[in-house]
Amino acid sequence: MDTKDFIDFGKATIDFVANYVETLREKNVLPDVEPRYLFNLLPEKAPQKPESWQEVLKDVERCILPGMTHWISPHFHAFYPTANSYPAIVGDILGNSLSCMGLSWIASPACTELEMIMMNWLGKLLGLPKQFLSSNEGFGGGVIQGSASEITLICLIAAREQTTLSTKQLHPELDEAIIKTKLVAYASDQSNSSVERGGLLASVPIRLLPTDDKCALRSETLLKAIKEDLKKGLIPCCVIANLGTTGTCAFDNLVELGPICEEYNMWLHIDAAYAGAAFACPEYRHFMSGIEYADSFNVNAHKWLKDSRKLVEACSVDRIYLKHDKQGVIPDYRNWQIPLGRRFRSLKVWFVLRTYGVEGIQQHIRHDIQLAEMFENYVKSDSRFELVTERSLSLVCFRMKGDNQLTQELINRLTARRKIYIIAATYREKLIARFVIGSRLCREEDVTFAWDEITSQATEILRSVTPPLEEGSEESLKTRLWQNQKV
Amino acid sequence: MDTKDFIDFGKATIDFVANYVETLREKNVLPDVEPRYLFNLLPEKAPQKPESWQEVLKDVERCILPGMTHWISPHFHAFYPTANSYPAIVGDILGNSLSCMGLSWIASPACTELEMIMMNWLGKLLGLPKQFLSSNEGFGGGVIQGSASEITLICLIAAREQTTLSTKQLHPELDEAIIKTKLVAYASDQSNSSVERGGLLASVPIRLLPTDDKCALRSETLLKAIKEDLKKGLIPCCVIANLGTTGTCAFDNLVELGPICEEYNMWLHIDAAYAGAAFACPEYRHFMSGIEYADSFNVNAHKWLKDSRKLVEACSVDRIYLKHDKQGVIPDYRNWQIPLGRRFRSLKVWFVLRTYGVEGIQQHIRHDIQLAEMFENYVKSDSRFELVTERSLSLVCFRMKGDNQLTQELINRLTARRKIYIIAATYREKLIARFVIGSRLCREEDVTFAWDEITSQATEILRSVTPPLEEGSEESLKTRLWQNQKV
Repeated sequence: MDTKDFIDFGKATIDFVANYVETLREKNVLPDVEPRYLFNLLPEKAPQKPESWQEVLKDVERCILPGMTHWISPHFHAFYPTANSYPAIVGDILGNSLSCMGLSWIASPACTELEMIMMNWLGKLLGLPKQFLSSNEGFGGGVIQGSASEITLICLIAAREQTTLSTKQLHPELDEAIIKTKLVAYASDQSNSSVERGGLLASVPIRLLPTDDKCALRSETLLKAIKEDLKKGLIPCCVIANLGTTGTCAFDNLVELGPICEEYNMWLHIDAAYAGAAFACPEYRHFMSGIEYADSFNVNAHKWLKDSRKLVEACSVDRIYLKHDKQGVIPDYRNWQIPLGRRFRSLKVWFVLRTYGVEGIQQHIRHDIQLAEMFENYVKSDSRFELVTERSLSLVCFRMKGDNQLTQELINRLTARRKIYIIAATYREKLIARFVIGSRLCREEDVTFAWDEITSQATEILRSVTPPLEEGSEESLKTRLWQNQKV
Repeated sequence: MDTKDFIDFGKATIDFVANYVETLREKNVLPDVEPRYLFNLLPEKAPQKPESWQEVLKDVERCILPGMTHWISPHFHAFYPTANSYPAIVGDILGNSLSCMGLSWIASPACTELEMIMMNWLGKLLGLPKQFLSSNEGFGGGVIQGSASEITLICLIAAREQTTLSTKQLHPELDEAIIKTKLVAYASDQSNSSVERGGLLASVPIRLLPTDDKCALRSETLLKAIKEDLKKGLIPCCVIANLGTTGTCAFDNLVELGPICEEYNMWLHIDAAYAGAAFACPEYRHFMSGIEYADSFNVNAHKWLKDSRKLVEACSVDRIYLKHDKQGVIPDYRNWQIPLGRRFRSLKVWFVLRTYGVEGIQQHIRHDIQLAEMFENYVKSDSRFELVTERSLSLVCFRMKGDNQLTQELINRLTARRKIYIIAATYREKLIARFVIGSRLCREEDVTFAWDEITSQATEILRSVTPPLEEGSEESLKTRLWQNQKV
């Protein structure tokens, strides 16, 4: 493909994307395909001769779009939002084109430095304490990683190595490999699956501790676990605290947990993958009280460290082909992560922060939360439903009143109808439905659309489980109550 | 940013990229900046109000380009090539715009299925045995991972869990944590740094074994190490073999190593990060004889497994919000990798394979190798230089004849002059210079340009270390020989 073809193909794709976004509201959010649908549409092997880009783009429309779950659709209320905005898309065109691997400073100075500066911008935007920022004095700083899972894993590994080393110093007679078999880490039972998985991968068992009625991990629970484990001869090494759990967006109490980590010399990692972005608005920063106790902090796709040296010590392996003469003066980010190579991802952050501005970001977050409030009010106004936990940021956890089975049936029906996408979670044996404002395209009309869809299905479900009306009977009143949207 | 602005910004960026690529040949490949240069050019925090995209794009030119090491420049001969082509850039515009997280099939069927099909296309293109491909019968298949380092790590973890389990079955009296302290893995001392690092991260020590004079790991060396370790009570669990090492692009002998792995029930992982792509040309497939013994195979940014169940068993953690009713029918790729989320990266592969075609890919590989042959011949024709190992694919390892210090000086001068970028490696205590054909833009004139630059610097170096000529003396002849480019 020559440069002229690239220009035509690239611009046609920009138009394709613009059209995709503008027409997304009209599409079902979930696809109507069976497993292996695409195997029937595409050939079994690559073509021998080159094909034109026009044919390829036509096939995106024909083969790919029908199999998409549209994450940026205004009707997507599942999981948590994916990162997506126009300036981010354009930023990545440039990142992909410059196509450098920022594995060391010399391998692309701009790539390393823009990341340092962007992580500082973002840290300041979120109001993180100074020791998390990159400066000439300290060893703090941020780094963009591939995913929150990688971050959890790498912090667990750093904690594992740190505790092994400090235990070895206290007990030189112990074998390091044996020390490692005794390590234990803690998180709440509300943690994301990546936390448990990180423990499996790092070979550090994680005790998932029970939470209070707001799904938060509290000091007495943690202390009790630590003392039990110490009695068994185990060595506590790490606490992974949540600011905004996946299930119900609950916040652990850092002011309580922090001093315990300090006392027992444990690494405190904060997983704020979703909720961290809300700290851009000062009115939500009280959720991170106690952040100064943390060793590391993660918000979607980025993270900060208070002392990067600990990570570098755990992971650093040098080869002559990676050496350069400015080493030590400036971070070689490869030592802060699992991969060796790294893309120029900070361009995305730069483009977004500049074209939104701080006020634009704050406005976006406040808008999403207002829409979630609107949905919350809908739920409160309909006696067939109940809120399970308080709304937290842009997540509303609700269910059909008092009934797991009806709630499951509701989610199943909504999924089968494919018009909106919400998913289930559990909260103290209760099955709940999670409604997230997931798309930057979401407007009031979309919340109303979702609520109409939910209530119409609730009505159908209740009709099928309740006996036919007998006029004048007491039963009929009760049934009518269930079937009406508002009472 | 509204859709109209996105279209304008996107198209302006496409033009920017086209211009960048077209003018790249004229630019120095290495930047002329000192650490923290960018801190002087950018403000300390994000702007309060939105800025226009025009200002942002202007700053890319002003602040970013001067700090770039241009990886796709035709004068980039360091490391190994980065993935970059026009259709890949456009494929990623689409992937970023659809912006789905393919963490399970239902989370985006098209994302999972296109990846399965593309990995099959690629597997067939490279001539991998059938058991590595995804089919209705077997458990093989490919997956796109973030980096070769992640793949090595995840295979080491799978091997660790597999061996622990099988040892536990044979010796139920042993504690699993204790078994893990006895595991050991093997690789050659020519392995990429990511292998040693994977061992640190997975907490499985890796013995780096010596190689033969072609930098290949051989059976007698491996067998000796295994027997020594068994005698010490250790448990061998994994061999990571190289097809194309980072230093000299050497190939381990799979036909020898495979049966040993089988006999001792060890996971055999193949790291063919760079050289794997050459197997698209049948004339290079003899390098992978014995591939059928492998459990897993990695080529840049992709990998294949013979039995995916082993990986899923090692890494799988389920939560209710990840469940869907097609589970088990089709892969949920999140269990094949470290992160939970995953981008729609197979679009890039699809766009590249279709617009190049098999023949286009083969032509590209053969062209690169021809250029490396051209450089090899230049080296052979100049008695001031020597080839250190045979040229392997598009990598030529050479040095100033018999001298580490002169070779280091040459690399230092070339780096300081910033016109071409080559890096050092070591081979049996010898310092060597690695010359890679790294850019798809590279043409014959660029190889000549690089050679002229290298020889002009060699001449300068030798002039400064040799005494001034005394006419008629024997010494002068020898010196002239050193100073002439061709003899």
